[in-house]
Amino acid sequence: MRFNQEPPLIAPNLILMKERRQIMYTDLREYLADLENRRELVRVKEEITDGHEIFSLIWELNKKSGPAVILENVKGFDVPVVTNIFGTMNRFASSCGFPRGLSINEYRDLFLNRLDKSKWIPPRLVKSGPCKEVILSGKEVDLGKFPILQWHPDDGGAYITLPIVIAKDDKFGRNAGIYRMMVHDNRSTGIMCNIFQDQGIYMGKAKKKGQQSGMPCAVAIGADPSLYIAAVTKLRFNEDEFAFASALRDGAPIDMVKCETIDMEVPASSEIVLEGEIAFNRGKMEGPFGEWMGYFEEGMLLPVFEVKCITHRRNPLYLMTIEGPQMGDAEILRMIPQIATFTVQAKERITGFVDGWLPPAGRNYSAFISIKKRYPGWGKTAIYQAFSMPYIASSANLVIVTDDDIDVTNPDDVVWALSTRVDPYQDVIITPPIGGYPLNPAGSVRPVEFPNTGLTDITFASKIGIDATLKWQGEGRTRPTAQPVKPREEILQRVIAKWNDYGLAD
Amino acid sequence: MRFNQEPPLIAPNLILMKERRQIMYTDLREYLADLENRRELVRVKEEITDGHEIFSLIWELNKKSGPAVILENVKGFDVPVVTNIFGTMNRFASSCGFPRGLSINEYRDLFLNRLDKSKWIPPRLVKSGPCKEVILSGKEVDLGKFPILQWHPDDGGAYITLPIVIAKDDKFGRNAGIYRMMVHDNRSTGIMCNIFQDQGIYMGKAKKKGQQSGMPCAVAIGADPSLYIAAVTKLRFNEDEFAFASALRDGAPIDMVKCETIDMEVPASSEIVLEGEIAFNRGKMEGPFGEWMGYFEEGMLLPVFEVKCITHRRNPLYLMTIEGPQMGDAEILRMIPQIATFTVQAKERITGFVDGWLPPAGRNYSAFISIKKRYPGWGKTAIYQAFSMPYIASSANLVIVTDDDIDVTNPDDVVWALSTRVDPYQDVIITPPIGGYPLNPAGSVRPVEFPNTGLTDITFASKIGIDATLKWQGEGRTRPTAQPVKPREEILQRVIAKWNDYGLAD
Repeated sequence: MRFNQEPPLIAPNLILMKERRQIMYTDLREYLADLENRRELVRVKEEITDGHEIFSLIWELNKKSGPAVILENVKGFDVPVVTNIFGTMNRFASSCGFPRGLSINEYRDLFLNRLDKSKWIPPRLVKSGPCKEVILSGKEVDLGKFPILQWHPDDGGAYITLPIVIAKDDKFGRNAGIYRMMVHDNRSTGIMCNIFQDQGIYMGKAKKKGQQSGMPCAVAIGADPSLYIAAVTKLRFNEDEFAFASALRDGAPIDMVKCETIDMEVPASSEIVLEGEIAFNRGKMEGPFGEWMGYFEEGMLLPVFEVKCITHRRNPLYLMTIEGPQMGDAEILRMIPQIATFTVQAKERITGFVDGWLPPAGRNYSAFISIKKRYPGWGKTAIYQAFSMPYIASSANLVIVTDDDIDVTNPDDVVWALSTRVDPYQDVIITPPIGGYPLNPAGSVRPVEFPNTGLTDITFASKIGIDATLKWQGEGRTRPTAQPVKPREEILQRVIAKWNDYGLAD
Repeated sequence: MRFNQEPPLIAPNLILMKERRQIMYTDLREYLADLENRRELVRVKEEITDGHEIFSLIWELNKKSGPAVILENVKGFDVPVVTNIFGTMNRFASSCGFPRGLSINEYRDLFLNRLDKSKWIPPRLVKSGPCKEVILSGKEVDLGKFPILQWHPDDGGAYITLPIVIAKDDKFGRNAGIYRMMVHDNRSTGIMCNIFQDQGIYMGKAKKKGQQSGMPCAVAIGADPSLYIAAVTKLRFNEDEFAFASALRDGAPIDMVKCETIDMEVPASSEIVLEGEIAFNRGKMEGPFGEWMGYFEEGMLLPVFEVKCITHRRNPLYLMTIEGPQMGDAEILRMIPQIATFTVQAKERITGFVDGWLPPAGRNYSAFISIKKRYPGWGKTAIYQAFSMPYIASSANLVIVTDDDIDVTNPDDVVWALSTRVDPYQDVIITPPIGGYPLNPAGSVRPVEFPNTGLTDITFASKIGIDATLKWQGEGRTRPTAQPVKPREEILQRVIAKWNDYGLAD
């Protein structure tokens, strides 16, 4: 049975939510129905040949800020591919229950507000849910029934690109995150949880305790979009992504169901759930994979996820995205959550912090920070403080610190400061190579096997910090501080008020 | 008599030129008439209080990409102020005789074409011209009759901001350039010709030869816009800006007239001409002045221009512009000439040079260069070669070298390369402080008096070069070169061709 012969998506809850003037979705299908109502979703009935065609299609959609699509007719599969569901800032807003049409900074501030833990409602454990409509165990377990394909031209295989991977730790509790998973065979995949990521740390702890049986792990694919937003948000240890998601749903808790074969809970309305264990005592090569840095990561020695059971909805939808050096679906999903949690860290660590920006084009390997400089040399202090932030310690290669007259989200402002406020021999700090996030494309050295873990866990890369604040007299400067040219505010306002009198109105 | 009571501007030549499908102007007035026909010029009849109001007015015009203006009623003056004549790329195009509506790179390429000396026609010496309609000498010499005002809030005085300063050297011939001139009194000004500029070099040579009487110098204010374009173009020694201007006028030569009191020629149709001498044996403090770097330059010890004679048209127009950290009139005047002459230098010096960009926001203190890298390490070679270019040796603080898959005019591309292709400890080159252009705001040390010249001639600033090319295996990198993610071209083209079949056409 093909999806395109099914009755239209039904979204009873959506209507209710609309009346409450708060868009909120019980599952992926309600979200898609809402997008369809808004004419932001297209059902493609044309046959799709393979994953390469899908990659090119999303590439073009990203360029055009195009609609979400349901590819109903993917050659060889009964399951449709759903993609580009986050592809515009408006769709991001809908996914978070935010008003559409706001600015990046307004979304960041709304998101920061939602990070206030006091507003989170823990998920609700329910007896059953749609994700249990079909249960496949034992010999029925077969990843090959879903259109998990090779997407990018030089990928080493087929990848699950939007899995919500769920694991638990005695002390830190439950964690949900998105990790790349290459299909090794119909019952196992690689999984990129490394020592800089929560579940890599959980795995390390389990291993240290002498646990042999692997780490139980569930993977939800296709769910209410707020769960994806929560999963890409770097919460603290002990904070539950599923509780946080309630803050993106007007306080409505997430319904969770128990897994069939492991002690784990998954969102009840997931399209597809994989249950299994991460075998952490052996790594297996996977990759290459076209990654979010915009490059093919050359392949990693990663732990293996062994699938023991699959549950899914009737007529499941397979949700995926692509990666590449574009601003599109995958980047829009991550942008605001990342800048918001970056801001939380920066406020805690950087003296005089005013504003921060992780330019999407920098793929999180650059951070631009503005400060209110109160003492000479504090541009450098801010660089060292930035280097101390987990975000930057593990990932960013480039930190630029500016005064607060610079809008760090405006490339022209940043280029102006870099070009006119930096005397490099005394305003630039360069570190030696530091072990960090393994996907760092700039790092010159990346051992396939990091001896401490036996996995591809580390890339060595150095960092540069540029103090692009105006230098004060005495702060390595024998001349006065440069004073920016601008009109006197009262005269400018008078001129603006007289615009019609000048005959200059349009 | 006020300008606004005059008959409308008459432009007989303009009509002829239009018929030839080549817009070309004999003087400033024809250009203004053309702008008025295009509704790109507004005559402001409202009384203007002072230069601060004019600064704010242009500031707003820059923000809005607004029209050129004639301020007909400036309090205390009979002479109108004309400004913002270069304020859009289309007006720049008209000033060069180029078609309107082209891209930055197309204008750069057209400009490069015009730099071909074989097409230049030397100026024509004519007996007299409109600039001789009024001749003021002896006690009649009075700069106070023109609306030369203090423009920027913290300026040290009134500045002539669009003077075409003309001087001669035995060996190098005639030179025309734009140099800041602060009015000291009604018969003298400062003049910022320093040892990095042609006329500063002429002055140094004259001084060395023991010349005592000062250097003859003429200043034209208000002329055919092609002459301004030529004056901001960094030609080689021995190349005459007035000959080059003919290439911006479909080969039509410029008419020049002899000065009254010095051996010098000036454009016959200039609005105002100042004749005099640069007294190079004593400096005089001037400034501060709000400069094109976007900062108030703190004031300089500069030679003095002593005005011996003024000639001007009847009912002269006073042409000026402002400076500041905006993209506007003054920046648009300079942008294409600078990137074109930068490109000429870069092609001569940088192995594998593909493209160059001086981002306007960087105020010429940054240069982004893409190369076709043919050997490992040649990103660094390109940095050293860039440092050797006169443009960068004297001015730029920041050089970024990328591969040729990066569009150096696109900030996102440059940020991507900076963030993902640079391992700073081995990809960054920093120089010690080097004496360079005195207006460099980043330079930490700027002696008011540079001992060798007795003037403010030098700022010491260091330079940073960042090799943002992809590193090859072996080039300080033990892992393979990162490969950018992009679709296979043939599949992408097939997808684009099928866009309608997918149901994705708008």
